[in-house]
Parts: sequence; structure tokens; C-alpha cells
Amino acid sequence: MTDHSPPDSPYLVPFDGDVSVASLPTEPPYANQAGEVDRKEELKGRLSAVVSQIAELQRRLYANNHYALLLVFQAMDAAGKDSTIRAVTTGVNPAGFQVFSFKAPSKEELDHDFLWRVVRRAPERGRIGIFNRSHYEEMLIVRVHPEFLEGQRIPRLPDLDTLWQERFASVRDYELHLARNGTVILKFWLNVSHDEQARRFLRRLERPDKNWKFEAGDLRERAHWSAYMEAYEDVLAATSRPHAPWYAIPADDKPFMRLTIAEIIRDQLLALHLPYPELDPKERENIDEYRATLEAELAD
Amino acid sequence: MTDHSPPDSPYLVPFDGDVSVASLPTEPPYANQAGEVDRKEELKGRLSAVVSQIAELQRRLYANNHYALLLVFQAMDAAGKDSTIRAVTTGVNPAGFQVFSFKAPSKEELDHDFLWRVVRRAPERGRIGIFNRSHYEEMLIVRVHPEFLEGQRIPRLPDLDTLWQERFASVRDYELHLARNGTVILKFWLNVSHDEQARRFLRRLERPDKNWKFEAGDLRERAHWSAYMEAYEDVLAATSRPHAPWYAIPADDKPFMRLTIAEIIRDQLLALHLPYPELDPKERENIDEYRATLEAELAD
Repeated sequence: MTDHSPPDSPYLVPFDGDVSVASLPTEPPYANQAGEVDRKEELKGRLSAVVSQIAELQRRLYANNHYALLLVFQAMDAAGKDSTIRAVTTGVNPAGFQVFSFKAPSKEELDHDFLWRVVRRAPERGRIGIFNRSHYEEMLIVRVHPEFLEGQRIPRLPDLDTLWQERFASVRDYELHLARNGTVILKFWLNVSHDEQARRFLRRLERPDKNWKFEAGDLRERAHWSAYMEAYEDVLAATSRPHAPWYAIPADDKPFMRLTIAEIIRDQLLALHLPYPELDPKERENIDEYRATLEAELAD
Repeated sequence: MTDHSPPDSPYLVPFDGDVSVASLPTEPPYANQAGEVDRKEELKGRLSAVVSQIAELQRRLYANNHYALLLVFQAMDAAGKDSTIRAVTTGVNPAGFQVFSFKAPSKEELDHDFLWRVVRRAPERGRIGIFNRSHYEEMLIVRVHPEFLEGQRIPRLPDLDTLWQERFASVRDYELHLARNGTVILKFWLNVSHDEQARRFLRRLERPDKNWKFEAGDLRERAHWSAYMEAYEDVLAATSRPHAPWYAIPADDKPFMRLTIAEIIRDQLLALHLPYPELDPKERENIDEYRATLEAELAD
């Protein structure tokens, strides 16, 4: 099915379910003090180089037209999903991307099973699909707020433990099906600390140009922090697999986070060994003839 | 997940993979000679009564709005799919049905995994979805004509035996996911005999009002009969499950086939025990008041 391993990284979540969210770092592996400005500039320069590589690899993905690449982004509020997606895609041909942000489900979406709206937005062959939030919300926000299940109108709802296990199974099965059929999947959890979220919320309140980003609901969700961490831990343990790995990326330092994610995406695309398609041998024989025809037309 | 068994029937395909297509009947369990006209009329009358029951049960399914019912129809050409679908749905409110005929996949559909186009057409809660052909074509016509796989552009295609096993697994996983989330699934294989197909093709050639139904391609597929029977046998064995059973319906006698299918659909809807939704207790208290308001308005 896949003859490549997922890109290696210290942040790759193991596939055996042995995950403890409390022990996952939210900060880069180096101190974040002296030479701050220089370091930021250095990371930005490196990011720009990696994004250029992604841009070239995306052209190959498109020309090859066999694989799709699906990037899933999940995080607590203010972890930096939107700005990270912007950072790793800006400078790449937008026609090669299919970005989709999942909000609260619509009435039509609630009339279907919870994967339906996600399947519809799965990326086409040759494209990079980006999910800003995803089907995983069904095992995160819905787990923290099980009252949302009522709107889903599932007949004969099992007990909640069984329900989450069934959802994990549905998601594993679907991602395996995608992988078998040519979609390469990378999932990023932007792991921001409780304190750093508070600092970012405060900045949103203090800076007029950031006020619009703040919603009272964000504080209500923050109050459920430990329930969310428990839900994330179970999601990571149950659904990180070789064909659909999770990466738990330290998110307290944005330049480090962006570069780390961009490098994983780049490494994944490199691992696909995407050649430009070769011309059909018969067509190749005709090339001299085509060239002669066109040159004759120009000579007229 | 489901607390009901599938409707019982002599034509239910067992769930343990023990299926031999050659031993499945293509004719009703009674002789088809004397009193032919009377018997046909009797079967038609019974069908009409069963369809009326389906019409009433469909209203309950719609009002209850928790379950969807998915009916899958597969068959060799001229087995009677279209006329059976017409027979079991005519007289039922069309708004309660979502019928979809799957033809050769479009370019957009080929840009996705093989389940994508099927998932998009899955029925909403409260509705009866009918698939005239379905995702099973991917393990039937594509198995008999593996050259179609080229158009699907699957990277690193496994050997074909593995491919069909993986497709069976994908389909089982998807149908289990649907069932867990409230879609009840019934799958009908209209089992027509090799001889009866020849007789029906001949009628299409002889009767001017049936000529339009005949295509030269039908004869080409008929030449692959035994390959198709092998493919059907594997499909039935691999994908008949309690939450998504196959019924192999004798199809050489159309009135018998239609009635048998209608009865299974009716029995399935009955087994769901669909009550009309009860009014909210608070609303119920207000009913007298609403009534008084409306009566006063009429009295003005």
C-alpha cells in the first residue's frame, strides 16, 4: 500500500498508542532568550527555502497526478493554525491547494454520518488538501461537549465510551482506505501550552488590530483545558498510524513550529520520488514532426 | 449498534462467506406454468398492498428522522433493476426517496478514491436512498475488465488479488460506519439465469418499443458471464454482513422478484419500530391555548 515510512521527526506520535500529552514538549529544544531576533530571522530564512522546495514538489505532484496529499491541522485556540497554514503555503501555486476550514456542521451535514462532510472535501489526485480543523473535532469538541450529539440524531446511541471507540475505528478505517487509494496523510497537532494561550488571548484583548480574533467562547473552551488534553491524548493514541501519522508540534514558538511543519511536508513529498510524467514513446517519435510543422508555420 | 436482525428470507446470503452462486435459485420455488395469468394477478395485488405499507412506513421514517435506509441494487443486464425499483417505489412519496444511478465514473470522480462518489450520494436521515448500481461495480465490472484500473491512477497498485481484498475491506468498513451512524442497509442481487437473459435480449431485438434498450455492449458483457458469476460470488461472500446483508433474489420471474424485494423492505422498516415523534411535554401543555387562539381567529 505505502512503501514509504512517514517522515522522521522527534515529534512523530508513536503508532502503538503509547502517548502522554503531559510529556509532549510545547517549546523548542533550545532556550528562547539571547539572540532572539537573529534566531527568528534565521528560522524565517530557512522556512522560505523550504517553502520554495514545496512549491517545486507541488508541481511534480500535480504533473504526476497519482497521489493526493492531505494535511490535517488541529489545535486549541490561538495555537497558530491559520498563520501556519498561510506560512507553509504562501508562494506555492494556489491552484494546487484545496484548503477547507470546518466550522459547526450545517443542517444538511448533520443529516449524514459524521464523516460525510469530510469525505466530500477530500483532495483530488495531484492536489494538496488542507483541513483547518477536521473530522477529529467529532472526538474533541463533541467529546468535551457530548450534548452536541443530540443534534446528530444517531438512533440507539451506544454508551459514550463505546461511541468514541467506534469513531476512532471509523476514522482509522477511512484513513486506511484513503491511503490504499493514493492519498498520503499527515496530521499536525499544534501543541500550545496553557500559559502561552493565556498570553496570546491577552494580546488579542490589548491590541486593537487583534481584537476581532477574540471571542468570549474561547475563554469558555479554555476552562475545559484538561478535558481537551485528555481527548487529544486518546485521539493521538488511537489514530496515529504509519499511513496517517500524527505529529505533536511544539507551538509556543511560532517560527520554530512553522519551519518544523514545512520540513515534514517537504520530506514527505520528497519521499514520494515524483518524476515528471514521461512522454508516450509513440508521441516522442512524433516530436520532430510536430516541431517541423510549427517551425514551417512560423516561417510562412 | 443495531439491535435488529436483517429481515429473514430464504434468499438472505449467509454472513460466514459460505456462498455458491451456482447453487442459488434463479426461479421461484413453485412451478411457473398452469394458471400463469391468475398467479401474476395475485402477485401484483399483493405487491400493491406491500407498497402501500412501505408508503406509510416511509412517512414514519421521515417524521422520526433518525434512520436512513439505503437500498443497493446490482444485477447482470436485463435482470430487471429499473423496473423493480419503479415497482417498489411507485405510490410512495418521491420526496422521501433519493434514487441514484451510477454510470461510468466522471473525470472528477476518477480524481478521488472509488468510494468518494458513493459517499456523496448516501441518503440523509429520514430518507430512503436507492443505488441503481453502486460501489460494488468496482469489484464486478472492474474485476472482469481490470484495464479500467488504469484510469483510476492508483499509485503503486498492489497485485490484483490483494486489490480486491482491500476493496472488500474498504466497503465493509464503510458500510459498518454507516450502520453505526444510523443508516440501515439492504443489498439486492437480482439473480437472472444465463438463458433468461438471452430471452430478454431477444425480446429487445424483436419488439420495436424495446429496441432502445439493446446495446451491442450488452452482448460483449454477456460473453464474460462466468467471470461475472465468479466476481459476484466473491462479493456476496466478502460483504454480506448482519448490518449490510445481501439478498440473492431469483430474477427469472419478475412479479415474484418484485414482491419478494418489497416484502423485505417492508419487514426491515417494520423492524425499526418507528413511532411518530412525540410532542415536547411543554408544547403539549400549550396545545389548548394554541387551539383557543386559532378558533378565536376563525370566529372573528
